[in-house]
Amino acid sequence: MSLLVVGSMALDSVKTPFGEADDILGGSATYFSTSSSYFTDVRLVAVVGEDFPQKHIDFLKLRKIDIQGLERTEGKTFRWKGEYGYDLNEAHTLDTQLNVLETFQPKIPEGYKSTPIVFLANIDPDLQRDVLAQVESPQLVAADTMNFWIEGKRDSLLETLKLVDILHINEAEARQLTEEPSLVKAARKIFSYGPKTVVIKRGEYGVLLFTHDNVFSAPAYPLEEVFDPTGAGDTFAGGFMGYLANTMDFSEAAMRRATVMGSVMASFNVEDFSLKRIRDLDYKEIENRYREFKRLSHFEDI
Amino acid sequence: MSLLVVGSMALDSVKTPFGEADDILGGSATYFSTSSSYFTDVRLVAVVGEDFPQKHIDFLKLRKIDIQGLERTEGKTFRWKGEYGYDLNEAHTLDTQLNVLETFQPKIPEGYKSTPIVFLANIDPDLQRDVLAQVESPQLVAADTMNFWIEGKRDSLLETLKLVDILHINEAEARQLTEEPSLVKAARKIFSYGPKTVVIKRGEYGVLLFTHDNVFSAPAYPLEEVFDPTGAGDTFAGGFMGYLANTMDFSEAAMRRATVMGSVMASFNVEDFSLKRIRDLDYKEIENRYREFKRLSHFEDI
Repeated sequence: MSLLVVGSMALDSVKTPFGEADDILGGSATYFSTSSSYFTDVRLVAVVGEDFPQKHIDFLKLRKIDIQGLERTEGKTFRWKGEYGYDLNEAHTLDTQLNVLETFQPKIPEGYKSTPIVFLANIDPDLQRDVLAQVESPQLVAADTMNFWIEGKRDSLLETLKLVDILHINEAEARQLTEEPSLVKAARKIFSYGPKTVVIKRGEYGVLLFTHDNVFSAPAYPLEEVFDPTGAGDTFAGGFMGYLANTMDFSEAAMRRATVMGSVMASFNVEDFSLKRIRDLDYKEIENRYREFKRLSHFEDI
Repeated sequence: MSLLVVGSMALDSVKTPFGEADDILGGSATYFSTSSSYFTDVRLVAVVGEDFPQKHIDFLKLRKIDIQGLERTEGKTFRWKGEYGYDLNEAHTLDTQLNVLETFQPKIPEGYKSTPIVFLANIDPDLQRDVLAQVESPQLVAADTMNFWIEGKRDSLLETLKLVDILHINEAEARQLTEEPSLVKAARKIFSYGPKTVVIKRGEYGVLLFTHDNVFSAPAYPLEEVFDPTGAGDTFAGGFMGYLANTMDFSEAAMRRATVMGSVMASFNVEDFSLKRIRDLDYKEIENRYREFKRLSHFEDI
């Protein structure tokens, strides 16, 4: 079934210990939609400026992403500049220029309104609710957020969370949102805000999936080199949500498989700058890496 | 089969966000032997001072640990004082008094010399080799080490590693020893030093087991509260080595099960101060938690 995503599209400048690149394609909606496009039909809601290169839009079309909801407006595209040290788990933001994102008012095209699955990527929680208000009773709503909104728009974020089934959040932000050092307690507190499922991302340490009474721990793929972790979380979410939209099975077992599928996609993404590695994957590669995750975490009963 | 351990016995003073305790039983050999005593016969080589409470020795006897190799000598027992913040992954050492450990010369009793499996807990790498020189061709030798020896006795440590089959090391120390930020590369470099198996401990993030061509990622048990992480690494090693000594199967599949068994034991250990939680476990509890690790990491094929 179809999957709707609202989020950012960006031109990033990224520096890692392995190199640097300027004005490369980035943004949460870009990573998410590219990743999920391997599994399902994706409908994109985002905004770019006049300076946004047509080749990037052509790329999205090539991936059969529905860009009816992509607005091109006066002004410059959102830009993010960041740097990673050898500890690639944390990005140091050097510069953020919101540009066209500052006045973004997501408008959901008529044809998108009955989309059964919605992913609210990391944008202003007010806008996340605006989007939901325009969609007709989706079957599954997931969202991501970040420290910026936890600090600056906590009340609005909590309003949004009431409407969310699955929260994707990283470890530090889960602790910040709930003021609980224990992730088990943090997840339980997030349940009390609304979500029934909490996906806690831990970078090179993998992912914890909290459902009502259970926890699932997915490993991360031990890569020889991580070139650029930018977009890993959104690529993870794209694989996760794309897999769920493909199967329309929202059971715990399916969520576990979705968590691994998200981890598979993220493991590819960090192997190269920007979206280079996930632009043109073969589905065989995806299946093979899923099997490698199986081998990576398999052990026998005693 | 029997398992020999040489390491420290200590009186610890520990402060965590959840409380504090003074002069409590600690030391690498203590945690290791207690943990491994659930799986096999354990022979202990260590030294304590005149101030060491008899009740602790009685406890080891109760656990059927062979203390023929436990030396009681003039002077005071080794003391360690440490503190943990909310990030329980890292101990801040406040004070270390080597005391009787300073002049310790491990003497292996005649009856220990044919022990097939040897664990060299974290002590001076010179002493680790002294011990090995006194044991008659063991079938399996494993060792642990720490930043103190990596910095201060690197050459001696590398000499020891030539004689070691399995290295237990934590993540930061693996990076420090090899000067490789990538753990995959770090493990490969450690293979070139001698060990054929590298066990990288990552605290609340679990354990990576590197064997010749394979990696196994074991999750950590998501606990609601970690009360005191002191001894978690030695307790892990005790479960790991104890399980191997019990089965005498050193295949990769057995090492994976041993990694989980070590994680099971460590997950109990951190639930309370000192060795409180692992003093008197029921084997049923151990089996049940092993099964919980299974559930924690299980996912289906796609």
